[in-house]
Amino acid sequence: MSDDAPAFARVAVLGIGLVGGSFAAALRAREMAARIVGFSPGGDAERARSLGLIDAVATSPARAVDGADLVVLAAPIPALPGLFGEIAPDLGSETLVTDCASTKKSTIAAARSALGAAYPRFVAGHPIAGGERRGPDASRADLFEGGTVILCPQPQTSPQACDTITRTWRALGSTVVRLEAHEHDALYAEVSHWPHALGFALCAAIASGERAETALRLAGAGLRDTTRIAASPAALWADIVLDNREAVLECARAFEHHARAVTDAIREGDRAALLECFELAGNWRRRMP
Amino acid sequence: MSDDAPAFARVAVLGIGLVGGSFAAALRAREMAARIVGFSPGGDAERARSLGLIDAVATSPARAVDGADLVVLAAPIPALPGLFGEIAPDLGSETLVTDCASTKKSTIAAARSALGAAYPRFVAGHPIAGGERRGPDASRADLFEGGTVILCPQPQTSPQACDTITRTWRALGSTVVRLEAHEHDALYAEVSHWPHALGFALCAAIASGERAETALRLAGAGLRDTTRIAASPAALWADIVLDNREAVLECARAFEHHARAVTDAIREGDRAALLECFELAGNWRRRMP
Repeated sequence: MSDDAPAFARVAVLGIGLVGGSFAAALRAREMAARIVGFSPGGDAERARSLGLIDAVATSPARAVDGADLVVLAAPIPALPGLFGEIAPDLGSETLVTDCASTKKSTIAAARSALGAAYPRFVAGHPIAGGERRGPDASRADLFEGGTVILCPQPQTSPQACDTITRTWRALGSTVVRLEAHEHDALYAEVSHWPHALGFALCAAIASGERAETALRLAGAGLRDTTRIAASPAALWADIVLDNREAVLECARAFEHHARAVTDAIREGDRAALLECFELAGNWRRRMP
Repeated sequence: MSDDAPAFARVAVLGIGLVGGSFAAALRAREMAARIVGFSPGGDAERARSLGLIDAVATSPARAVDGADLVVLAAPIPALPGLFGEIAPDLGSETLVTDCASTKKSTIAAARSALGAAYPRFVAGHPIAGGERRGPDASRADLFEGGTVILCPQPQTSPQACDTITRTWRALGSTVVRLEAHEHDALYAEVSHWPHALGFALCAAIASGERAETALRLAGAGLRDTTRIAASPAALWADIVLDNREAVLECARAFEHHARAVTDAIREGDRAALLECFELAGNWRRRMP
């Protein structure tokens, strides 16, 4: 446990998929939580307990947060408004609340309308972590090491709450970056939500074509990398792109402009136009760390 | 050297980038070539010699192939017709010729019109290997291990020539698959050429947007994988998609149909339609080895 790492007596994790399970595992590995209680509507919490990721399974979100000094929501986006409403009456007067959702404007709006007096102790967060594997079995105590976590504190957010959540993620190995919620949503529409939609569309096109089987057998490493995100949980991503609809559609428009320029250049045999686009893309991409 | 591996007295490699350099390195590592001579219009052949990938640098394609029992063309697509023409008069009566180009219909047409009596000893090939690094310095003797090589022999192709080229690639660790040239071009338009164009277009859209710099810093692993191919050599890929224009445009149309279905579903909040597309895509993608 690093000197600056917070220590919690009781942590409630609501939603125990890859992210919730990994958060619990990471806290335990660093001895930052004396007790971790989990809740999930299906069997994930039970599975997480048998894997040793959490200490106990709560029968409801309200029971999970009872007596907790930290509550982490790691449930799918559509479940969040209901969860905020269910836990609000049972949050202690010092309890910190944070979340891990991929969109922030709607999460913050849901928290604001449901949490009441606890809202200043809610710190909206988004660990940039995930993958095509899901559930407690995919959880890893090192998932957040070397990663980035975006926090979107609001004017009402207590600086102390924000500081504790920041130190928690740093103790788990992540760099913490603060963004405005609308800026977060626009940025991740561009670098994550729309690229996921695109990856799904590309695979759907190949899967619907007459070469779907041959393609599986003979595609090279390029396609495997390009389409890895299409193996991500479909429902999770449908909910993300729908929740961030406006920003994602704006990315779709910008992309279509460039995709059209590319197909026009191919059709017209315009090598110079094609090169201009490919070089712009490559010069940007090669700067990615 | 495996029992079935051919042994060559003199191999000429025309074009010494990642693929040509790796082919030379792989032959040497397995002692399958007594002498390897390279030609490239720039300094790549000289660099390959100083790296020990080849034994000697020829001053022209014709000199490179003089006395060679195997000639491998690993030059960019636009250079191939000229190379076939330059080497044709100097090919020996037993010399085998193969190539590594990403498109096969145009390569075969160029070989047929230029090689004359040597055409039956030309075996059109395409190792499914590459990457964003290029040039002799990126060459690796194990590039083809565990990979796939497509061969497209023609009715005129000598079975013995095809057999020797097949055993050569197998000795380098690749699985050899035979396809009709038009089937090859349609398949790789779908699983490689169009996905590359798409990856470039996606990066061009982000690079042209107002968040280009933040995106570099805050994008997650998903975008890094999805756009890796956009770091590939721009000119090489411009030439590939232009050479395979018809097939690539057909893939663009199929893709646009699915991309439009996705954006329509997002706009209309049609979760069921989105899920149907994402699940079709994911179910296919998860079957990829």
